[in-house]
Amino acid sequence: MKRAIVMQTDFGVDNLSVSTMKGVCRQVCGELDLFDSTHAIRPFDVLAASDALVYAMPYWPEGTVFVSVVDPGVGTARRSCVAKLNNGSFVVTPDNGALTYVKERLGIQAVREIDERVNRYPATRDIHIFHGRDVYAYCAARLAAGVIDFAGVGPEYPVEEIVMAPYLRPGKEGGAVFGMICEATEHFGLVGTNIPFKWLSQNGMEYGSKVRVAIFHGDEAVYDAVVPLEKSFGYVEKGAAFAFSSETGAVMVAKNQGNLVLDCGLGAGPDWKLAVSKA
Amino acid sequence: MKRAIVMQTDFGVDNLSVSTMKGVCRQVCGELDLFDSTHAIRPFDVLAASDALVYAMPYWPEGTVFVSVVDPGVGTARRSCVAKLNNGSFVVTPDNGALTYVKERLGIQAVREIDERVNRYPATRDIHIFHGRDVYAYCAARLAAGVIDFAGVGPEYPVEEIVMAPYLRPGKEGGAVFGMICEATEHFGLVGTNIPFKWLSQNGMEYGSKVRVAIFHGDEAVYDAVVPLEKSFGYVEKGAAFAFSSETGAVMVAKNQGNLVLDCGLGAGPDWKLAVSKA
Amino acid sequence: MKRAIVMQTDFGVDNLSVSTMKGVCRQVCGELDLFDSTHAIRPFDVLAASDALVYAMPYWPEGTVFVSVVDPGVGTARRSCVAKLNNGSFVVTPDNGALTYVKERLGIQAVREIDERVNRYPATRDIHIFHGRDVYAYCAARLAAGVIDFAGVGPEYPVEEIVMAPYLRPGKEGGAVFGMICEATEHFGLVGTNIPFKWLSQNGMEYGSKVRVAIFHGDEAVYDAVVPLEKSFGYVEKGAAFAFSSETGAVMVAKNQGNLVLDCGLGAGPDWKLAVSKA
Repeated sequence: MKRAIVMQTDFGVDNLSVSTMKGVCRQVCGELDLFDSTHAIRPFDVLAASDALVYAMPYWPEGTVFVSVVDPGVGTARRSCVAKLNNGSFVVTPDNGALTYVKERLGIQAVREIDERVNRYPATRDIHIFHGRDVYAYCAARLAAGVIDFAGVGPEYPVEEIVMAPYLRPGKEGGAVFGMICEATEHFGLVGTNIPFKWLSQNGMEYGSKVRVAIFHGDEAVYDAVVPLEKSFGYVEKGAAFAFSSETGAVMVAKNQGNLVLDCGLGAGPDWKLAVSKA
Repeated sequence: MKRAIVMQTDFGVDNLSVSTMKGVCRQVCGELDLFDSTHAIRPFDVLAASDALVYAMPYWPEGTVFVSVVDPGVGTARRSCVAKLNNGSFVVTPDNGALTYVKERLGIQAVREIDERVNRYPATRDIHIFHGRDVYAYCAARLAAGVIDFAGVGPEYPVEEIVMAPYLRPGKEGGAVFGMICEATEHFGLVGTNIPFKWLSQNGMEYGSKVRVAIFHGDEAVYDAVVPLEKSFGYVEKGAAFAFSSETGAVMVAKNQGNLVLDCGLGAGPDWKLAVSKA
Repeated sequence: MKRAIVMQTDFGVDNLSVSTMKGVCRQVCGELDLFDSTHAIRPFDVLAASDALVYAMPYWPEGTVFVSVVDPGVGTARRSCVAKLNNGSFVVTPDNGALTYVKERLGIQAVREIDERVNRYPATRDIHIFHGRDVYAYCAARLAAGVIDFAGVGPEYPVEEIVMAPYLRPGKEGGAVFGMICEATEHFGLVGTNIPFKWLSQNGMEYGSKVRVAIFHGDEAVYDAVVPLEKSFGYVEKGAAFAFSSETGAVMVAKNQGNLVLDCGLGAGPDWKLAVSKA
């Protein structure tokens, strides 16, 4: 049996990029099974790519080959690599920070730089190189089909050299817990963080009580309010903000049937800090 | 040969829920073929889920395993079940009304409650349970792969106990025909009903003639107009409303290059009634 | 091994049309591999369908069966056909112009009209015929599965009879190069043409220099400006227009972080001409 290939990109689904990636995979081996994980990763957001890998990979069989193409530095000197995880699955990706959480939370056993002399689609019909197709999908297909083994990817380099994207680790200071805003969706108006929800009760904040939520963009305070800590939207009045747990057990803040993100001009990334303390 | 799995949900395609459902299926059996039917069902609308099943299932091979996850009552006492249809296909779904039209129009031979002691994904890495993945996808995969047979799903219960969502059946009163608005899409501004289009000619309403269309929300009349009955958009002036037949032979009403739904604030569901009579 | 089927349509992904097409394919043969290329082709735009085929097909294995359903003339007298390309792949499509660029750029070896007496889905459960499902997907599946060979599609007709959609071929006049606007996306505000980018340098227009861009809708001049010729968005000021090369080597025009299409009311098609000359 061949290994399955699972793809994630920031390309969206209204274009032909993913189609050509799949076509190249099937040229390598006409029996490969190809799946889409998501193509809606926030464009150029390598930490969002990393989050998506950490979320999805544990549900796929050991040995699955993931292709992740979120590549703001395409054309620059970043390495193209294949990481082998502790569970035997692989990630084929630019080494640009997309492996940050994968390394920290799932564990990377070894990493190899893709040797483009052998693992690049040999088409010569145009000059243009689309790395997602010609390097990442092609190399992933060769690995999944057994044309090459992991050593055939290219030279190994130390796991310590994997590029780690800077992010704000969650922490505790005084009675407050804090972390980074990882997600601020305009569509739903939700704010997601990397703060473990269980830290709240460990600091005396329980369901039904009030907490103080403060948001900073760099040094600037952009939001500061006392809101209830509740289980879900139905517990608060329409338009009211509240804090709750995401389905993965992280602190989220939102307004019931409102849009906290647009109302307050919030964003996501390492320079967006959110703190929660007892009110 | 394994049975194929076909998935429908109200999750949209900009997240990882479906990816993890597919991953769990492939953990059960690495040779399962997995297809998406649609992930754009109107959120929480169990009748829309039922409509989608009735529309799509007849085109898939007998024996296909459908997974339907539209689950407004997740966490409540609704049963999780597998229904076996008269044609040998299966639907894995919460028993919350999503089987309403399936039972009435396609016919259900038997239904079994999913025994979560055996047919639930045994992951222990987090507390959170996502039923679509951990119960419905997992159980469907076991059934499709032949790990269990239908009896292995869990205890059978009477088909009569299947939850039927209330809806307004189409009917005739006086010279009018009436039914429920099943679909009111903001995007296209179309109104779809469950009134058989052939009932119009049976009541003397022919193409090219005028008909009276009345729409009620509960007891309130929200639309009342005389419009032409035509074959398609090109037969009426820009902005004009008209009645026509859907591709499945039901009465629809729309404005040519306009938006009847937004203009009149229309909705869909059992409390939205539409009546058509000779003008 | 079966041939893969790759589908492209203008149906979008929020409905069940593609699901039923896939179901019918799997009824023909339960082992067929089915892929989506794109379902976001501009509605009714047969040249856009043709562009998408020419772009994607070379990346898929020889012998792949493409199904293309962009069918503004459904119900009229247009032929349904299967074209066999020089590389051994097939396109199953209405013969309505969708093969225009395929014939010119990839080469068509032979074409056959689909004999609907044998290659049409024999369902009788409703009167409605959806050609994408009942003719194109069904015939493609029979061909891909080996139920029929190419001769089994139906009678051959001369390749010269394939319907060619009118379009404006790129050309040179005086010092200017011109061509058709093929793509004017409201979302990104980009204008794409069929003018080879290399023609600019052949006419003395180099990166870093200024060029004059003129756009005509029929006889009407709708845009005329002197803009820089640059490698990418980062080289121009926010809001400024510039010309550049698409990833396929064609001339594009856009505004950096602006929307040229909406600002100037631009469209795409044979009656939209764009000319570039030295400023």
